[in-house]
Amino acid sequence: MLLESVPNFSEGRNAETIAALRSSLETPGISILDVHADADHNRSVFTLVGDPAALVDALFAGIRTALDRIDLRRHEGAHPRLGAADVVPFVPLLDTPMEEALRAARSLGERVSRELNLPVYFYEEAATSPERTNLERIRRKGFEELRDAIGSDPDRAPDLGPAEIHPSGGAIVIGARGPLIAYNIYLNTSNLAVAQAIAKMVRHSSGGLRYVKALGLDIPERGCVQVSMNLTHFQRSAIHTVFEMVRSAAEAHGVAVTDSEIVGLVPAAALLDTAKHYLRMHDFALGQVLELRLLEKES
Amino acid sequence: MLLESVPNFSEGRNAETIAALRSSLETPGISILDVHADADHNRSVFTLVGDPAALVDALFAGIRTALDRIDLRRHEGAHPRLGAADVVPFVPLLDTPMEEALRAARSLGERVSRELNLPVYFYEEAATSPERTNLERIRRKGFEELRDAIGSDPDRAPDLGPAEIHPSGGAIVIGARGPLIAYNIYLNTSNLAVAQAIAKMVRHSSGGLRYVKALGLDIPERGCVQVSMNLTHFQRSAIHTVFEMVRSAAEAHGVAVTDSEIVGLVPAAALLDTAKHYLRMHDFALGQVLELRLLEKES
Repeated sequence: MLLESVPNFSEGRNAETIAALRSSLETPGISILDVHADADHNRSVFTLVGDPAALVDALFAGIRTALDRIDLRRHEGAHPRLGAADVVPFVPLLDTPMEEALRAARSLGERVSRELNLPVYFYEEAATSPERTNLERIRRKGFEELRDAIGSDPDRAPDLGPAEIHPSGGAIVIGARGPLIAYNIYLNTSNLAVAQAIAKMVRHSSGGLRYVKALGLDIPERGCVQVSMNLTHFQRSAIHTVFEMVRSAAEAHGVAVTDSEIVGLVPAAALLDTAKHYLRMHDFALGQVLELRLLEKES
Repeated sequence: MLLESVPNFSEGRNAETIAALRSSLETPGISILDVHADADHNRSVFTLVGDPAALVDALFAGIRTALDRIDLRRHEGAHPRLGAADVVPFVPLLDTPMEEALRAARSLGERVSRELNLPVYFYEEAATSPERTNLERIRRKGFEELRDAIGSDPDRAPDLGPAEIHPSGGAIVIGARGPLIAYNIYLNTSNLAVAQAIAKMVRHSSGGLRYVKALGLDIPERGCVQVSMNLTHFQRSAIHTVFEMVRSAAEAHGVAVTDSEIVGLVPAAALLDTAKHYLRMHDFALGQVLELRLLEKES
């Protein structure tokens, strides 16, 4: 049973605090695959993998460190945030069912509300009502706004924990979701309008694929434009479906796809689905991939 | 540094001996991913993964068990064989260089020749001369033939160890090679001649791709024919290249590819290369796959 978690902490500048967060998270059974600290956003994002129980322990330790070291009353940064430990999603890997991610989210939520006295909101697959599915809908204008509203506006009452924010640490949003894939497709044109038209066609908000967010962007250093996307559910809106839609739309505009890229990490299944599709391998199982079988044996 | 090894032992019927081989191989740091025992061939094949030193230890223990329990003078089976422990290939996984597999092959060869008094032949990437690259060329008619020839025919002198075979255990062939992929493509016709013509076009021996072996086969239970292939170097003769050649040739014969299959295990890189190709992801790195990065952290 493997889960990934990608906790976001509201500190992207102080190297000592980032190192302290890291060492709290680095507990037995946990692999830290990536650390990304952003000074503009004043925010750091860790990518952890482990079994559910080990992950909950590691994240609890990380959240406690965030509360000890980060004071939101003195925090500035471009990114909206509600808490010192701001957002903690759990993501199932390999054949782990979503229910395991949800269970881990609930278990961490209960523990931080009880032991750290933090207000907890659950989002995405862990949401307690449809309105709480969306992270932005929970976070709204952030810490300063929630401080006033949490006790008075019933719509902002936490799912667990006290109906007042932690003075320095705010609140925390914990969830379960599928993996996010940042996927970009480059076109052999510098005409931004073409990328924007294709982005509009492929994205959910304007009639495209259900689990695709897309923007057309100019990439001056490459002298071309890009369709920049977030794929939020690759099992339903697959990478190859997105690629073929963009390729065909580009052709219709008289331009071509030069290449595509995945930014950051991607779960193996997303690209194996792509290979299965093009090779017409209807019966292929993930367990046939040697390295994945090895990982399942070890975990 | 991860290696795979796929040792072949000359026992596929006696469950007790197969279990004893398995328990000898199951040593610290080793994962046994697959065991395939074939009664007709009277042969069993294990798929092991581990770091080079752990693998050499595990294989040494397995070979010693084979010598204790298997007597080739009383062995019958459809498959040609030279030894109780017949063939031991080492295969590099992930980013492990071929040199590591070669080094492991040499180290195991030295150890079994010295401590078990077995004649050792090295094949494929571990071969000591071009004529010894090919396994069939070393094995020829098997144990009974080699028993007479090993001391008299200089062409059959072992690379290491005594110039006479072990009385009950014969000799051993140890090598380093890339992963083998068993890959089949199905056509929507029952005309065997079409599958045979396509097999001939795609395989190395009759003018096709360098690292492809192919046959046309009738698959009566599916009412169609199949191009049945072994891919021996997927980095050079890629799965997607093979697929596109067969697809195009099938079209030229007025038939279509219905589906394809990989039989058994496949290294992740072979299918990730396929996804990279179709999505035009020129800069994609294996380390971007979350599960592979995790495996590299752990090993």
